[in-house]
Amino acid sequence: MKRFSVILSLLILCMPVSGCNVDEAQNTVDNEVLYQVSTINALLDGAYDGQVSIAELQDRGDLGIGTFATLDGEMIVLDGNTYKARYDGSVEKVDDLQKTPFAAVTFFDEDERVENAEFADYESLQKTLDGLIENSNLFYAFKITGDFPYVKVRSVPPQQKPYPPLAEVTKNQPTFEFENVKGTLVGFWCPAFVNGINVPGYHLHFISEDETMGGHLLESRIKNATILVDQTPSFQMTLSEDSEFGKLRLDEDKTEELEKVEK
Amino acid sequence: MKRFSVILSLLILCMPVSGCNVDEAQNTVDNEVLYQVSTINALLDGAYDGQVSIAELQDRGDLGIGTFATLDGEMIVLDGNTYKARYDGSVEKVDDLQKTPFAAVTFFDEDERVENAEFADYESLQKTLDGLIENSNLFYAFKITGDFPYVKVRSVPPQQKPYPPLAEVTKNQPTFEFENVKGTLVGFWCPAFVNGINVPGYHLHFISEDETMGGHLLESRIKNATILVDQTPSFQMTLSEDSEFGKLRLDEDKTEELEKVEK
Repeated sequence: MKRFSVILSLLILCMPVSGCNVDEAQNTVDNEVLYQVSTINALLDGAYDGQVSIAELQDRGDLGIGTFATLDGEMIVLDGNTYKARYDGSVEKVDDLQKTPFAAVTFFDEDERVENAEFADYESLQKTLDGLIENSNLFYAFKITGDFPYVKVRSVPPQQKPYPPLAEVTKNQPTFEFENVKGTLVGFWCPAFVNGINVPGYHLHFISEDETMGGHLLESRIKNATILVDQTPSFQMTLSEDSEFGKLRLDEDKTEELEKVEK
Repeated sequence: MKRFSVILSLLILCMPVSGCNVDEAQNTVDNEVLYQVSTINALLDGAYDGQVSIAELQDRGDLGIGTFATLDGEMIVLDGNTYKARYDGSVEKVDDLQKTPFAAVTFFDEDERVENAEFADYESLQKTLDGLIENSNLFYAFKITGDFPYVKVRSVPPQQKPYPPLAEVTKNQPTFEFENVKGTLVGFWCPAFVNGINVPGYHLHFISEDETMGGHLLESRIKNATILVDQTPSFQMTLSEDSEFGKLRLDEDKTEELEKVEK
């Protein structure tokens, strides 16, 4: 009996509960955390070496965005799967062993929902999302599915050392326009005070329902949109212990550079 | 046999391992995380309501610093115990149910050690610590024990609503000077890019070996010092979902205000 109760209590402790997930080591993981690899200023400075594996990243969330080692494409994490939208326009599911230099994920828990919405452009979408942000000092994850009469995305090509700054790479970024596709936007709204650490405001990536089209969102028209919102009050970032990372100047105001890169 | 192996594997999964601790829910906790409640700019703005209990805080670390609900004194977390250095000069061990509006803790793992050091003042201590910071984009925890021929600390009195800004409170802060006491300094060095979120540079609190004297460090002379250093590459902060917190402007540059408050 005693042995059985030990099994039982350990099983109960390790069971997934509301607001929690269980990672590979059978730990319950707090869903209300935006987990981030590196900082946006490090990425702007060309810190493209892979730091964290996709397996580790997926232990921290089932929805998110980022990029891959050497800046090889745009990352979309949706429903626990990780996709790469490459610079040649192709989209592929990514294996667990690949690494990321910069990414942000969370376990998506729906806190709020808007249905049957329609947006003429990205600006009008942002205005509606603004109204869903109740506390502008927290983080918000979004999952927006719908019909896209028009969507424009970009991707980035893999780089070779010495890595150029991100603003150099995006000067010649390949962009892709799609018409009449079903798909999903995933990403985050971050508060202004994480300037330099993540992107203040909106940062969304797109993937089509058939998983063949995707990238960093530049513009979109959406019909029959369902917006799911996840308010996220905790933030975690993990930083590289490499000496190269230690040499970066991460406290500079790169607002203008970021603006160029995001658009 | 099968049942036994289930017990065994669950026990192994839940056992503390190097670089990990086990929290109350039997989860292994990553030691290499600086865990923070709220942001320094929120504290500067007078966000003194308690957010996280001492029990929860101690699940995230055994060493650290902070303050208590209503700004009732300086917090010292040392070897898993939490102490309050009050504005009247007394020091008490704090029960698990009290709450903190701002604190930072980590599970202290010694990465580096300096023994038999001597420091004429806080400035010379900081110069030596500077040499121990190998990567200026990471976080560092310190535990510095020794004989203190002289140490000057301050504390802060509990506040009533509407809470005044921290710089108003510290204008009339009570300071305490002690001579020839044994004790420990605990606290952190944070990278410049967390400006507004935590205190860039050093932030140390003192507690005497007999647990009767303590506070926010202003000045010290130290003999026979042993410095223990813990390089910490991950950072987590948890923010309040209260609507009051959402109204704070946390992205303002409060460097000057912080400078006044820290000294």
